[in-house]
Amino acid sequence: MDNFTFFNPTQVEFGKDKEQAIGRHLAEHGIKKVLLCYGSERIKRDGLFSVVSKSLAEQGIAIVECGGIVSNPVISKVREAIALARDHQVEAILSVGGGSVLDSSKAIAAGVPYAGDVWDLFIGKGHIESALPVFDILTLAATGSEMNNGAVVTNEATQEKFAITSVHTYPKVSIVNPALMKTVSRDYLVYSAADVIAHAIEGYFTAKDEPRFQSRLVEAIINTVIETTETLLADPENYEARAEFAWAATQALNGLLYAGISGYSYPNHMIEHSLSALFNVPHGAGLSVVMPAWMKWYHSRNPVQFQRFAKYVFGVETVEQGIAALEKWFDKIGTPTRLSQLGISEADLPKTIDNVLGNAVHFGVAETYPRDVVATILKSAL
Amino acid sequence: MDNFTFFNPTQVEFGKDKEQAIGRHLAEHGIKKVLLCYGSERIKRDGLFSVVSKSLAEQGIAIVECGGIVSNPVISKVREAIALARDHQVEAILSVGGGSVLDSSKAIAAGVPYAGDVWDLFIGKGHIESALPVFDILTLAATGSEMNNGAVVTNEATQEKFAITSVHTYPKVSIVNPALMKTVSRDYLVYSAADVIAHAIEGYFTAKDEPRFQSRLVEAIINTVIETTETLLADPENYEARAEFAWAATQALNGLLYAGISGYSYPNHMIEHSLSALFNVPHGAGLSVVMPAWMKWYHSRNPVQFQRFAKYVFGVETVEQGIAALEKWFDKIGTPTRLSQLGISEADLPKTIDNVLGNAVHFGVAETYPRDVVATILKSAL
Repeated sequence: MDNFTFFNPTQVEFGKDKEQAIGRHLAEHGIKKVLLCYGSERIKRDGLFSVVSKSLAEQGIAIVECGGIVSNPVISKVREAIALARDHQVEAILSVGGGSVLDSSKAIAAGVPYAGDVWDLFIGKGHIESALPVFDILTLAATGSEMNNGAVVTNEATQEKFAITSVHTYPKVSIVNPALMKTVSRDYLVYSAADVIAHAIEGYFTAKDEPRFQSRLVEAIINTVIETTETLLADPENYEARAEFAWAATQALNGLLYAGISGYSYPNHMIEHSLSALFNVPHGAGLSVVMPAWMKWYHSRNPVQFQRFAKYVFGVETVEQGIAALEKWFDKIGTPTRLSQLGISEADLPKTIDNVLGNAVHFGVAETYPRDVVATILKSAL
Repeated sequence: MDNFTFFNPTQVEFGKDKEQAIGRHLAEHGIKKVLLCYGSERIKRDGLFSVVSKSLAEQGIAIVECGGIVSNPVISKVREAIALARDHQVEAILSVGGGSVLDSSKAIAAGVPYAGDVWDLFIGKGHIESALPVFDILTLAATGSEMNNGAVVTNEATQEKFAITSVHTYPKVSIVNPALMKTVSRDYLVYSAADVIAHAIEGYFTAKDEPRFQSRLVEAIINTVIETTETLLADPENYEARAEFAWAATQALNGLLYAGISGYSYPNHMIEHSLSALFNVPHGAGLSVVMPAWMKWYHSRNPVQFQRFAKYVFGVETVEQGIAALEKWFDKIGTPTRLSQLGISEADLPKTIDNVLGNAVHFGVAETYPRDVVATILKSAL
């Protein structure tokens, strides 16, 4: 195991009705005015907005609304929200939504005290010295953003989908109520399953000398995702399955799986970010296309881990059977495994490859992923 | 899953040479004078004390020494240390040692600002409203104390071994360098293995409706402990095994396994605490005696989990085979499985049972563990 620091100060409030106490959590941090970020107006129709408003009103906390954050969130919206937050001098950001709203909220929180343009923070032109405190009520379990310090946003002008991380962008309090997730659509449930699996496997397959303990944790997460996704497809009201799925998703990207490993990279995310940035496909749907294709190209570089994966996740013998089992499972649950299912054709490959090559430089893996490799992977996914 | 709060603010600095930075960590928290708690004078012979002293001197941090903390640490020593800490107006406690030193340090930290006698805090007569900050350099991986807020201390006058927990007693920074653990004796290595397994199984077997995700995490920890213990018995210098063992031990009692479960209890610890309190046996050695005996009495109450245990830990079929496999493994590594190996005979049972019954009240499980049940369990361990 490599040396590491593990530090994760986020307080997770997990379970039924936890959102009713959001006002108290904000008050405990001395907050009097928040920017309330959300996506569609659905939270007003389904009652969540009124629960939150009531809880905040009881503590005398003022709300500045910032709705309309979209999936694959964009930097223009973050800039708009930063201006709003400054105008109203809010003291915190409250995210009510899934990973896109939360990632935007972190970027807004970091951008408010930053003197330059917020995109600087994504491309290394600026450094996050402070951030407004972020609180969140999670309505979709997938990204793990509720218990980490990362945020991914797309710059629609440059077609770059990049990330920030900072010790200042851990949420203070994350409310994870699985009952709020039962209205997640079938499509987004299966995309989310692919997203969590992707978070678990990047380090598992690409790290130098992954410790077996960490591998076992990865397998625990993936097996839980597979089992609970199947339960939820048959029975969307199943709270227990929803809860195990959500907690496994949180653990997949809160630092636990990546503690003590080194030399790893995020090739599946690197490639998928180009699909999202160029074609606005759902992140999880892009990942379920990329993963089997990447695995077919990559597996001979780490046969030990691919054999573990085959054995301990799908109970099959060979590396090839393990990869085929994952692809078949994606097909079974109905998340795409082909670029054509995302509306991406061979004619789109040149610009896609160009975009991936840009990401590869940004991700520090340009040598491992030159043009011919990226082309091989993407072509096998057509 | 039951509702829960997960919050663990301890910063773990894991890996080689991490102890060299202890002065910097203290300085970052504004500390100018510490009570340095330790056990035997071994840390002066093996060089660790001089590394720590040098690191603190570089930051201008003064040391007040408090050596001589023993295994199964006692409240009289904690009281003595509290007086010393007050006399010298130290600003923090620095623990250099294993779980006994660290648990004592937490009790000292909570006792210094408390106006009454520190034992009040263990028996519910007083409440921990604040504590001095605790920092630690761990030299033995077993108790998990480095990443939780608990501390167990024995009152030698009343022969009670009780615990405190408080939001104020999480260590600020825990330094876990597996290389410092390579001089741990063979005996203490195997006792530690039993201790970690005990932490993992208490909730696993006794919780109402343990989620499968948490069960998988438990099995990941136990399998890692079994594998790495065997490696270390053959090759004590194996850093990788030492590291995986240590990190698994930390995860076994940092809140992760117990998030979302309810109705659980700590019967093996409850019984073992009496063995430690009365006969001063090493905690892990007591646990490896208690666990198989308790399992033989308890298993029919939760056959599903015992079948999981048999299958996913030892790869055997039946509940009985699983329990027998654990007992056989304890025998193989050389940690006791019989009270006689601890020097405890049938004549000692009456006072042992009395002590356990006192613990059962304190643990809130007196109804489940009346005299005849405790007697049955202990007799089967003779």
